[in-house]
Amino acid sequence: MQTNNNAQSPQWLDSVKWNSQGLVPAIAQEVGSKDILMMAWMNRDALLETLQKGQAVYWSRSRQKVWHKGEESGHFQEVKSIHLDCDGDTILLMVEQKDGIACHTGAHSCFFNDLDISSGVPVWRDLFHGDKK
Amino acid sequence: MQTNNNAQSPQWLDSVKWNSQGLVPAIAQEVGSKDILMMAWMNRDALLETLQKGQAVYWSRSRQKVWHKGEESGHFQEVKSIHLDCDGDTILLMVEQKDGIACHTGAHSCFFNDLDISSGVPVWRDLFHGDKK
Repeated sequence: MQTNNNAQSPQWLDSVKWNSQGLVPAIAQEVGSKDILMMAWMNRDALLETLQKGQAVYWSRSRQKVWHKGEESGHFQEVKSIHLDCDGDTILLMVEQKDGIACHTGAHSCFFNDLDISSGVPVWRDLFHGDKK
Repeated sequence: MQTNNNAQSPQWLDSVKWNSQGLVPAIAQEVGSKDILMMAWMNRDALLETLQKGQAVYWSRSRQKVWHKGEESGHFQEVKSIHLDCDGDTILLMVEQKDGIACHTGAHSCFFNDLDISSGVPVWRDLFHGDKK
């Protein structure tokens, strides 16, 4: 992704259907492996900064602030392309994941809990950390 | 996915962090291609029915009812596995997409709008239907 001087042009940002909190879900998918790494939220500033920086920037709902992914962990996401769904309310980022670690737990992907129904009683199994939930 | 008699056991459903509306986002990813097909929402009943049917069932926010994907279009999603993210607030379904069409517009995937920055002014380009937005 290249930054450019006209990124503030609002038309593309206005095409996004922000929810009542001014947010949209954003899915990060890894280029190459096509693994889904995480789902987070973006506000308008976060999406604009993502384009400008060429790195994923989200809105932290828990901290209520713009969150440049990797700013603390070093696990930046280089954004290769940005996509919007049919009704304009979900973003998809294709990214290269620095160090191959997207999750704050150290996992490659945040989706490490698999629903195991083999015993007859559904149980989430943490395939990365080895726990049951 | 197999249905079973103990699916109502609530522990696995209680592990999901439903939002204030009782919903979580659910991403459908295609087995094999690993394409991200769509993102929709589930409530507790929808997730339980997904497990029981072995087909994706969502909550339609616009119609405010449980929505068995494909019930009108025939484009059912056979669910092969169900995953939950690190903080329990997003579901990932691995699915086989009937007819290869997930989107109500006829597209394979709902994420057909690509952000094109080649002209210097970001524009969403509809790569499936050929429109600009």
